[in-house]
Amino acid sequence: MKSKNRVKLLESFPNSFPNRDYVIIHQANEFTSVCPKTGQPDFGMITIKYIADKKCVELKSLKFYLQSYRNDGIFYENVTNTILDDLISVLKPRWMEIVGDFTVRGGLQSKVIATYPDNKS
Amino acid sequence: MKSKNRVKLLESFPNSFPNRDYVIIHQANEFTSVCPKTGQPDFGMITIKYIADKKCVELKSLKFYLQSYRNDGIFYENVTNTILDDLISVLKPRWMEIVGDFTVRGGLQSKVIATYPDNKS
Amino acid sequence: MKSKNRVKLLESFPNSFPNRDYVIIHQANEFTSVCPKTGQPDFGMITIKYIADKKCVELKSLKFYLQSYRNDGIFYENVTNTILDDLISVLKPRWMEIVGDFTVRGGLQSKVIATYPDNKS
Amino acid sequence: MKSKNRVKLLESFPNSFPNRDYVIIHQANEFTSVCPKTGQPDFGMITIKYIADKKCVELKSLKFYLQSYRNDGIFYENVTNTILDDLISVLKPRWMEIVGDFTVRGGLQSKVIATYPDNKS
Amino acid sequence: MKSKNRVKLLESFPNSFPNRDYVIIHQANEFTSVCPKTGQPDFGMITIKYIADKKCVELKSLKFYLQSYRNDGIFYENVTNTILDDLISVLKPRWMEIVGDFTVRGGLQSKVIATYPDNKS
Amino acid sequence: MKSKNRVKLLESFPNSFPNRDYVIIHQANEFTSVCPKTGQPDFGMITIKYIADKKCVELKSLKFYLQSYRNDGIFYENVTNTILDDLISVLKPRWMEIVGDFTVRGGLQSKVIATYPDNKS
Amino acid sequence: MKSKNRVKLLESFPNSFPNRDYVIIHQANEFTSVCPKTGQPDFGMITIKYIADKKCVELKSLKFYLQSYRNDGIFYENVTNTILDDLISVLKPRWMEIVGDFTVRGGLQSKVIATYPDNKS
Amino acid sequence: MKSKNRVKLLESFPNSFPNRDYVIIHQANEFTSVCPKTGQPDFGMITIKYIADKKCVELKSLKFYLQSYRNDGIFYENVTNTILDDLISVLKPRWMEIVGDFTVRGGLQSKVIATYPDNKS
Amino acid sequence: MKSKNRVKLLESFPNSFPNRDYVIIHQANEFTSVCPKTGQPDFGMITIKYIADKKCVELKSLKFYLQSYRNDGIFYENVTNTILDDLISVLKPRWMEIVGDFTVRGGLQSKVIATYPDNKS
Amino acid sequence: MKSKNRVKLLESFPNSFPNRDYVIIHQANEFTSVCPKTGQPDFGMITIKYIADKKCVELKSLKFYLQSYRNDGIFYENVTNTILDDLISVLKPRWMEIVGDFTVRGGLQSKVIATYPDNKS
Repeated sequence: MKSKNRVKLLESFPNSFPNRDYVIIHQANEFTSVCPKTGQPDFGMITIKYIADKKCVELKSLKFYLQSYRNDGIFYENVTNTILDDLISVLKPRWMEIVGDFTVRGGLQSKVIATYPDNKS
Repeated sequence: MKSKNRVKLLESFPNSFPNRDYVIIHQANEFTSVCPKTGQPDFGMITIKYIADKKCVELKSLKFYLQSYRNDGIFYENVTNTILDDLISVLKPRWMEIVGDFTVRGGLQSKVIATYPDNKS
Repeated sequence: MKSKNRVKLLESFPNSFPNRDYVIIHQANEFTSVCPKTGQPDFGMITIKYIADKKCVELKSLKFYLQSYRNDGIFYENVTNTILDDLISVLKPRWMEIVGDFTVRGGLQSKVIATYPDNKS
Repeated sequence: MKSKNRVKLLESFPNSFPNRDYVIIHQANEFTSVCPKTGQPDFGMITIKYIADKKCVELKSLKFYLQSYRNDGIFYENVTNTILDDLISVLKPRWMEIVGDFTVRGGLQSKVIATYPDNKS
Repeated sequence: MKSKNRVKLLESFPNSFPNRDYVIIHQANEFTSVCPKTGQPDFGMITIKYIADKKCVELKSLKFYLQSYRNDGIFYENVTNTILDDLISVLKPRWMEIVGDFTVRGGLQSKVIATYPDNKS
Repeated sequence: MKSKNRVKLLESFPNSFPNRDYVIIHQANEFTSVCPKTGQPDFGMITIKYIADKKCVELKSLKFYLQSYRNDGIFYENVTNTILDDLISVLKPRWMEIVGDFTVRGGLQSKVIATYPDNKS
Repeated sequence: MKSKNRVKLLESFPNSFPNRDYVIIHQANEFTSVCPKTGQPDFGMITIKYIADKKCVELKSLKFYLQSYRNDGIFYENVTNTILDDLISVLKPRWMEIVGDFTVRGGLQSKVIATYPDNKS
Repeated sequence: MKSKNRVKLLESFPNSFPNRDYVIIHQANEFTSVCPKTGQPDFGMITIKYIADKKCVELKSLKFYLQSYRNDGIFYENVTNTILDDLISVLKPRWMEIVGDFTVRGGLQSKVIATYPDNKS
Repeated sequence: MKSKNRVKLLESFPNSFPNRDYVIIHQANEFTSVCPKTGQPDFGMITIKYIADKKCVELKSLKFYLQSYRNDGIFYENVTNTILDDLISVLKPRWMEIVGDFTVRGGLQSKVIATYPDNKS
Repeated sequence: MKSKNRVKLLESFPNSFPNRDYVIIHQANEFTSVCPKTGQPDFGMITIKYIADKKCVELKSLKFYLQSYRNDGIFYENVTNTILDDLISVLKPRWMEIVGDFTVRGGLQSKVIATYPDNKS
């Protein structure tokens, strides 16, 4: 699926407590995509942690958004950063962190942690 | 149950050690409410962490207060913030944090953490 | 993928110790298929336990066989029994058990255990 | 809800592998009912284990059947045996076991295990 | 407390499913008594497992019965067998097992398992 | 037991390393007292963490001190703060923290954390 | 310590429930002896499981008996069988099993299980 | 290393308790060999469980025997059965079981269990 | 293998998100080398944690690089620092940490943690 | 063993990476000494964590040093601080922390944490 079309899957609802800085965490234990090099399926857990400003992500749309990666070839580093970019563009959160935690491949277990704003922002 | 009536369920007793900033934690493992969209039951764990000022929350009344959500439709984000608002109004604590930790729905596990006072206060 | 084509993915190699009744177990932690009713992805763990006769299943071919279910719609009960039927037809084992252990859906976690030969055989 | 009406919630689908004795297990982690003595909510886990004959229980209908106990007053021993009776009447399984595993009350954790056919049958 | 008076604390209610051999388990995680030699408190977990005949043990009365040992001096072997004798006399079960699981004393952790009827009965 | 008499149970021995700020932790897993409202036994774990000045608490005397609460009615908040006050009066530590971690009552698990000196000191 | 002297450390008390076949288990988590080849300390867990006839082992004497191995050189296989022989000679139990569970040495973790009476008795 | 040379690494010592059928278990957590197809290293845990007759395996020699597979290419099924054959030839045990438990490769975790004498013996 | 040759095994690919400081973690659970003193194999887990600048480490090359230590004699402290030096020279990361977590030898379990830049840099 | 003689058991080797501040951790799971009051054996785990300057502790000598406490009577607080003093005198590390984690005695589990340099240094 093209990245532009994927973002359209994400829906939001208004944050009812915008005067408070509070943290929302959604953990997707059943993420799967495809390795762009070998064509083999990859499996992992995606954790989304954020402080909402005006919008919260709607859960069903988030589920469909994450499922859209199912048959796409994409690297660990890129899938984590792309989810961060897409959610920032839709929610404009005060703060957000995405953790991609992938299962063992060739004896190596990988994790990628991307945060907004980061030290360079 | 209407929010105004719900707050009336909460009772307090005087803090015997008001000269000390100490932390009290109550964890309710058996919280349940109803999803406002689907009408399906939601399940979770509510953790209340606070530094009392003049009042401590009475445990039996806290149990009845949390049970009052059993058949009400309310979102994860709102139930967590509402419990924080209600306990602040009754206890006027020096500091308080509510964590709502909800079970898996559609492969997504959610958590909401609201604190008083927060960065915006 | 059609069932007939799927079986062709399975390859075997000769059992080097046919004079001994010994047990071989392969556990696939990353099985995924699609729910035939909702179109939503299902996730689970497939465990294959058998006493070989003349043939052992080749591991790489087993991986590809199990991956072939990735985008097919099939019920828990049927996927477990079909894997049993396919492996029996290729390996002709002395004894075999397939366990399908599927993740939570709507608060229900499911497991199917099929054995050959069973009590009715 | 009256017991007669409750059974009507259960639906079945035909067993595709009736020539094999295989085991199906569904575990409901979010069961809740009400204590008939105190009116307080009870929480627990219901495990259904059976060998199907001609019919398998449909999962969505099983979810609604178990949810129908939410606001009914019923003892641990009775809820477990009633679920067994209801599922037998609908599925006519070759064998079935129900385990009710209830959370701590007054420092006591309870479990009830009912099987069909049992030693007395 | 004298043993005769202790038994009087136990109450029962009629078994609603006497035509079925089913198992009931109650686990008391907070048992405490006193060591008859040193006067030091002992702590442990008492598990009661039985197949009821005409009577089931009432949970609140069981709690009070177990609490009655709180300040009595009694050995591990004897407390386990005495609970078995007392429950047999009140419930007349078809089968019963008591497990006493006691915490570490002097680097030794002890467990006593008594069953009715046993091999000698 | 009266609070004044209870403190007398605590004994100390001289700190052999007073020139070093080091941490001593004692965790009592078998604490029990009585609920002042219901008369029912409470169970929990008391953790004592401190930086000694001139005195360390003697372990056997600490055991007897904690056992002296066995049949006294006292709230969670008060037992934790009282243990802190008593140990401060005897040891005059540089820093001390008491954690009371109590078992589930009515679905609620409670924890109290009191520190000396605290933010208000 | 000589084996003859070691047995004298074991004391017993009369079994109060000789008409019942019940199981007693003592687990010693802090066993240590010395390797007869290297002189290096060995560490492990000794579990004693038995059905008493006329006598039960007294716990304090069991502790001292097990401590008597502290500085003696003895192999895993022999220490487990010797403890079995010594306890049989003192208690004359109806049935007994000793499990010696030793920590890792050179990447190998060892366990010895000796039972009385065994298949050869 | 050639299989004949490998067996010579195994040493034994006389069983001091030949009149008793007792079980000895050695678990090697750090087994490694090489995949004969890919040349990639394999890792696993080898468990040796046996009833000795006249001889017990000496631990240090067992360690060197297992290390001798380090750079040899051999399949999971064969390594497990070969270790069984080698230990039988040296120890002539009354009963023996070897379990090879190998780490995940391509999402598949494998285990092989070989026993002597087996059902076919 | 000589250190110079070993570094050549490492390959990199361009970082697609150089404008963000994000963390990448690879954990190798199956590291093995040889003790330079005893010639005995060592086993451990190597964790690589870094913030990429222009380059990310390619996973397959990292696997081969770590496997190249299989038959080399090197101390725990040195292997950890050498991996850090080699990865710095190839990736020139903004920040990097290597953790070597080695299994028990003679009752001692060792861990080495090296970071770039460290306090002395 | 006298403290002076004990220190002589410790050997060191030169730190190959003195230009880097990196952390070395050795955890001894099988520490045992004797209680100076009761003569009963104590058991625990000693963790040594340090930043080396010119010298690293040699592992075999560390094992013998820790074993030298086996039959000496010494309090928890003193054994932890003495190990810290001895290792400082031999290694002159940039930073060091010793944690002594002792098993349950009389229902109390103890831990001592000593650091160099500490707040008072």
